[in-house]
Amino acid sequence: MPQLGLLHGRAWAVLFGQLRRPPGAVCIRAVHSHSQVAEAALATQMKPRQEKSNFIIKTPKGTRDLSPQQMVVREKILDMVVSCFKRHGAKGLDTPAFELKEMLTEKYGEDSGLIYDLKDQGGELLSLRYDLTVPFARYLAMNKVKKMKRYHVGKVWRRESPTIVQGRYREFCQCDFDIAGQFDPMIPDAECLKIMCEILSGLQLGDFLIKVNDRRILDGIFAICGVPESKFHAICSSVDKLDKMSWKDVRHEMVAKKGLAAEVADRIGDYVQCHGGVSLVKQMFQDPRLSQNKQALEGLGDLKLLFEYLTLFGIAEKISFDLSLARGLDYYTGVIYEAVLLQTPAHAEEEPLNVGSVAAGGRYDGLVGMFDPKGHKVPCVGLSIGVERIFSIVEQRMKTFGEKIRTTETQVFVATPQNNFLQERLKLIAELWDAGIKAELMYKNNPKLLTQLHYCENMGIPLVVIIGEQELKEGVIKLRSVASREEVAITRENLVAEIQKRLSES
Amino acid sequence: MPQLGLLHGRAWAVLFGQLRRPPGAVCIRAVHSHSQVAEAALATQMKPRQEKSNFIIKTPKGTRDLSPQQMVVREKILDMVVSCFKRHGAKGLDTPAFELKEMLTEKYGEDSGLIYDLKDQGGELLSLRYDLTVPFARYLAMNKVKKMKRYHVGKVWRRESPTIVQGRYREFCQCDFDIAGQFDPMIPDAECLKIMCEILSGLQLGDFLIKVNDRRILDGIFAICGVPESKFHAICSSVDKLDKMSWKDVRHEMVAKKGLAAEVADRIGDYVQCHGGVSLVKQMFQDPRLSQNKQALEGLGDLKLLFEYLTLFGIAEKISFDLSLARGLDYYTGVIYEAVLLQTPAHAEEEPLNVGSVAAGGRYDGLVGMFDPKGHKVPCVGLSIGVERIFSIVEQRMKTFGEKIRTTETQVFVATPQNNFLQERLKLIAELWDAGIKAELMYKNNPKLLTQLHYCENMGIPLVVIIGEQELKEGVIKLRSVASREEVAITRENLVAEIQKRLSES
Repeated sequence: MPQLGLLHGRAWAVLFGQLRRPPGAVCIRAVHSHSQVAEAALATQMKPRQEKSNFIIKTPKGTRDLSPQQMVVREKILDMVVSCFKRHGAKGLDTPAFELKEMLTEKYGEDSGLIYDLKDQGGELLSLRYDLTVPFARYLAMNKVKKMKRYHVGKVWRRESPTIVQGRYREFCQCDFDIAGQFDPMIPDAECLKIMCEILSGLQLGDFLIKVNDRRILDGIFAICGVPESKFHAICSSVDKLDKMSWKDVRHEMVAKKGLAAEVADRIGDYVQCHGGVSLVKQMFQDPRLSQNKQALEGLGDLKLLFEYLTLFGIAEKISFDLSLARGLDYYTGVIYEAVLLQTPAHAEEEPLNVGSVAAGGRYDGLVGMFDPKGHKVPCVGLSIGVERIFSIVEQRMKTFGEKIRTTETQVFVATPQNNFLQERLKLIAELWDAGIKAELMYKNNPKLLTQLHYCENMGIPLVVIIGEQELKEGVIKLRSVASREEVAITRENLVAEIQKRLSES
Repeated sequence: MPQLGLLHGRAWAVLFGQLRRPPGAVCIRAVHSHSQVAEAALATQMKPRQEKSNFIIKTPKGTRDLSPQQMVVREKILDMVVSCFKRHGAKGLDTPAFELKEMLTEKYGEDSGLIYDLKDQGGELLSLRYDLTVPFARYLAMNKVKKMKRYHVGKVWRRESPTIVQGRYREFCQCDFDIAGQFDPMIPDAECLKIMCEILSGLQLGDFLIKVNDRRILDGIFAICGVPESKFHAICSSVDKLDKMSWKDVRHEMVAKKGLAAEVADRIGDYVQCHGGVSLVKQMFQDPRLSQNKQALEGLGDLKLLFEYLTLFGIAEKISFDLSLARGLDYYTGVIYEAVLLQTPAHAEEEPLNVGSVAAGGRYDGLVGMFDPKGHKVPCVGLSIGVERIFSIVEQRMKTFGEKIRTTETQVFVATPQNNFLQERLKLIAELWDAGIKAELMYKNNPKLLTQLHYCENMGIPLVVIIGEQELKEGVIKLRSVASREEVAITRENLVAEIQKRLSES
């Protein structure tokens, strides 16, 4: 399985950080850098700001810029995720950042209040997408697509109280893989779990566990415990909080806030605190009350089949049947799952610590039908990788280990030891660019050689091409290895070929 | 220079299009596909829709989904653009989709009305970004970055009347490259033009021309022609329309709508209808009125230097000094440019036809200072590739030539000629996935062999692995080439190695 080698980056430095203008240098551009009109615009712009002494330049609450260092980490992780999706035959798809507001209503239960609406500026009422699943279902219904395996990497927006410490933002990236279509039971579902395992193993995030449950089993439990059907969704939301709250607190919410009878809550508690492997599925089949519930039986039957396929895929030991898993979203109808990272405990007798969810998904057989004028259904199952969480973990790990990342890919720097060599440098660098070589030079007429070489060392650029009067006279170029500091003279005609040879060897 | 080989795709078909369930097959999933709760939710959801007979599933006005075919074209084009940006040493950067509303005010002149605002749901007032340039300037000011070469690929949103025929959308992708920092004049500016040439040549879009002008020259012209300074921006906006309107119509707008004296408009007309090469720069230096204007002289001096560098880069013949080029955005302060595609005319004596702008940019030395509390400036120059336009052109061309694209990258299909072989297929495909091989199978217990082979042909999958009773008994797997239909038996242990060998050869 391909693995991500993030641990072997090269040194990086803030671009141009070492290249400040020397104090005495003439600053030509500043003299005529903008028009009177721009000056006027600038003046009017600055006035209101100076009046407002509390003017702060910032990104909106819960959002952030991604620095070049973060972008490099992100790109590597996303490449890895997308290549896994492609390995499983998925096609790419993209949808707009916003949808008609009515497309998003009644899809997200208690979380609907977190949807960002756009201002009514005339025309349609719009909302920013809350996930990539609802737009996918809308796409299928709109285009009458009955079968499709697609992936989608994109941003989604939720007006949550941002608890940034946990890596939760109001704007964040999701990586989704979904299989739409009518197929034999549990085959696509098992593939989704296989994909989650491949990605989490490939990213080397440490030990993980995938909790699995089924909405029909939960509904069956609610029914046999005596929850009124009108309260199924509300009680399901409470159960969903068991990964962050104790059963005592969840029970209190059910009874005090959601008006459930205490004995009903206690009966639920007996079930939702269970977790185990395929043996727990068999045990639940024997449960005298649960085995009387048609829905629960269907769910248990599917889980039994799922475990069979997961064993064939060699991943059954990563999966836990966990009756507390509920998943907040309204649209799930069958199997649901959530992957959590585990931290090896300090003491051998303790259970591994759950350090948070990094992937989740499930089956939603009714969602496409909600968009279809005739209610035609397209069964779907899918997963979403919580890449923001993964980015945070990898960044944190790199910080801990003091790893450095190159933020550019520049291969060759075009330098000169002499003044008035800009023309030659420009001709030379154009040759390199035209040959597909990644090259940079300093944007100065007369840069110092030491400054140029320092820049290469800081940025991890492997090769320097040096041109001066002597070289020009002899029709050669000096090629210098930054690491070894060795220099050789090469004829101009052979330069590109020699650079390409060296780059292919390294 | 690397070129994009879009013309050699493989046949594609809508995924699973050939794989519909045979009419008599039992539909197991439909029987227990969702819970009573979901049924209830579905019922309530469908009611209001049936009442509203005008319920239409669509994307918001001016937006669209990108199909898998479009995503493949897009990915190839974006890869090519980004690899050019990286060749020039740019770092990646990302900013949020929305900014504080005040960050975007007074940056876009007449176009400010096209900004999408978010609804006030409590908290900050937000707007969707209108371009990638203003967020970049905000980033520089916020982080006190004085020098940076960055690229950014991302969506932007503008509430324009969508004229979709022209490839104009309300949501569209931009690819920006910018150089921030105080450097010697025109070196970064020349590199921006070089990048535009590399990308447009590399994409093989046919002949193109880059128009260049300078805001200071335009301002100088307005000043010497007698335009009141308060009208500079308005008149600049009118001039900007010369690529879509005749001079007669633009003149009418200036006089009738913007209250300019007719003789002033006529004087402007004498200038803005000029275009040519570096000789026109020299001619303008000799202009008795223009040469008296300090601003215009600075602009002309920079253009002269720019042409010198463009000659060294070998691209001067692609550049036209065009006094009608104005660029709509408020923030430009110096050199501006815009690349247009040219269509070879039907008759030799005609001028090549301008079929639209595909890239543009310029210098904006005041924008970062607008964000800085103390007004500290960071000179910037950059460019934006109009990739939506390019996507349309490439898609149109492929349609014209009847080209087909593979929308998946699947290398191997795991098939069986027999019933009850799902377990063996699942074990086998997991081996392939774990070896990094891109593989698919049918999500059915008992698929027909012909259906499986048809699917491979339609999707352009090169290899099929076939497992049946005979093979299982002999401990082999059949490996079939879809193109030649040749089959060989391979031992299970050698299968992965043999597949990898064949894939590396093709």
